[in-house]
Amino acid sequence: MTSELSFIAALRSLASHPAARGLDDDCAVLDIGGETLVLTHDTMVEGVHFLAGQDPADVAWKLVATNVSDLASKGAEPVGVLLGYQLGEGDARFIEGLGEALAHYGAVLLGGDTVGGAAPQHLGLTAIGKATFRPVPSRGGARVGDGVWVTGALGGAMMGLEALRSGVGDSTAYRRPVARLAEGTALAPVVSAMMDVSDGLLLDAWRMARASGVCLALDSATAPLACPESRRAEALRWGDDYELLFTLPPGLSPPVAASCIGHVIARPAGGLQMDGAMMESGENLGFEHH
Amino acid sequence: MTSELSFIAALRSLASHPAARGLDDDCAVLDIGGETLVLTHDTMVEGVHFLAGQDPADVAWKLVATNVSDLASKGAEPVGVLLGYQLGEGDARFIEGLGEALAHYGAVLLGGDTVGGAAPQHLGLTAIGKATFRPVPSRGGARVGDGVWVTGALGGAMMGLEALRSGVGDSTAYRRPVARLAEGTALAPVVSAMMDVSDGLLLDAWRMARASGVCLALDSATAPLACPESRRAEALRWGDDYELLFTLPPGLSPPVAASCIGHVIARPAGGLQMDGAMMESGENLGFEHH
Repeated sequence: MTSELSFIAALRSLASHPAARGLDDDCAVLDIGGETLVLTHDTMVEGVHFLAGQDPADVAWKLVATNVSDLASKGAEPVGVLLGYQLGEGDARFIEGLGEALAHYGAVLLGGDTVGGAAPQHLGLTAIGKATFRPVPSRGGARVGDGVWVTGALGGAMMGLEALRSGVGDSTAYRRPVARLAEGTALAPVVSAMMDVSDGLLLDAWRMARASGVCLALDSATAPLACPESRRAEALRWGDDYELLFTLPPGLSPPVAASCIGHVIARPAGGLQMDGAMMESGENLGFEHH
Repeated sequence: MTSELSFIAALRSLASHPAARGLDDDCAVLDIGGETLVLTHDTMVEGVHFLAGQDPADVAWKLVATNVSDLASKGAEPVGVLLGYQLGEGDARFIEGLGEALAHYGAVLLGGDTVGGAAPQHLGLTAIGKATFRPVPSRGGARVGDGVWVTGALGGAMMGLEALRSGVGDSTAYRRPVARLAEGTALAPVVSAMMDVSDGLLLDAWRMARASGVCLALDSATAPLACPESRRAEALRWGDDYELLFTLPPGLSPPVAASCIGHVIARPAGGLQMDGAMMESGENLGFEHH
């Protein structure tokens, strides 16, 4: 079995279309007619991306939200989705949640496929959006001197998962994440780079640094938290919050509520610095799936 | 667990976009930027749609071919695909076969997602094409008096699967099906209805009859076979041949090699007649997955 990264590296050699800006990104960007489409596909597996026994309506919601979050990071507005669905016990609830999420984001179900089969349940969703601003932001545009910003607060999904598991507290942030669609559209014309924080702030910041060929220097204390201060180190590594991470040229302020959490420096290219210390990619930067 | 059909019926209530012509079809049709896009998503599961232990290069080829066949049935030319891939033992071979298939069909890998997890392996592919003719053919356009036609011959995939399982004979037709892309493009301007034969001629003909509100009257002896005559009844029910089933107004001949296998009559609406006898939907009309 190859690792995810080496498989993607091999796949990239197949992605030669001039209009496709590369698999390293969360989305494909495709110029069609007079429009620019943004396309993304995410797979969720029971026991990996959602809990066995979780309310299928919440699972459906999250499947849509994670894909729409990818569109949001490109400043794209959703058009529709195609669903790859493995039939299971909770089909009616799944359809309820799917309908709620599609209505919330103004997307429609364009098509898809269903299969049978045993657990764990596999779900795939392809989301198609239209770019509202061109060029479409990428994660590769951060420049030395830029400020590093993040919308919202981190750690909410972590607390929500604990609430869901324990039955105590509010699990909404984990069960029903909200993609930053309006923020993405407002930010697209002004950012130098943008992506969503799906796999943890540190891991995603490191990916942005690598894609941009720069170093992101973060000040960990400046990241707003949706969890107790004692959980800060975990919150920066926890996924599923779906906030937007972006860079802005120096002196610019974002048109939406967001926090400046660092700035871009030149070296080492592809590096990540936190509170003045270099982070190594071998360290646990994120990518936790629960 | 709901049945596939009732799940799709429930999903259809979510497919309200005016440009989306409904989930009952294999593809979504979406007008965007002056172009008409055709989108399809197919899922393949190890042990259901392909054999455990099958060469992953063949599996990748088939995953692409089945989706491109859906595009072909709409007269669309492939643009690109998004892959939902579950990492496994044969990743390098999978990538080889994927590259071959994409090159063959002039499509590129636009993006996707990978997941880990245990067998059975789940694979999803979304294919995006551009319509070459508008309006895009649907399965719902067959009219009374039309001729019913099919490209190529049936039963090849059945023989190929037997060859693959036994190790005797040529398994190519099962392992490496070829989507009728050129035929689909040539046929799109002249057909009244079109779809691909993925789940068996009889089942797919019945679906066309139902979508068109007519009855398809087939003459079973006229369907060309890629298997011994003694296997005719099976061949008409076997899937995976990916030929094109289409109807033409009376008197028209198709611009590609094809066989007339029947004609369209009025009643019963949504019915299927073979050799003068009505077929019941409860009978085994096809949809065999091996």
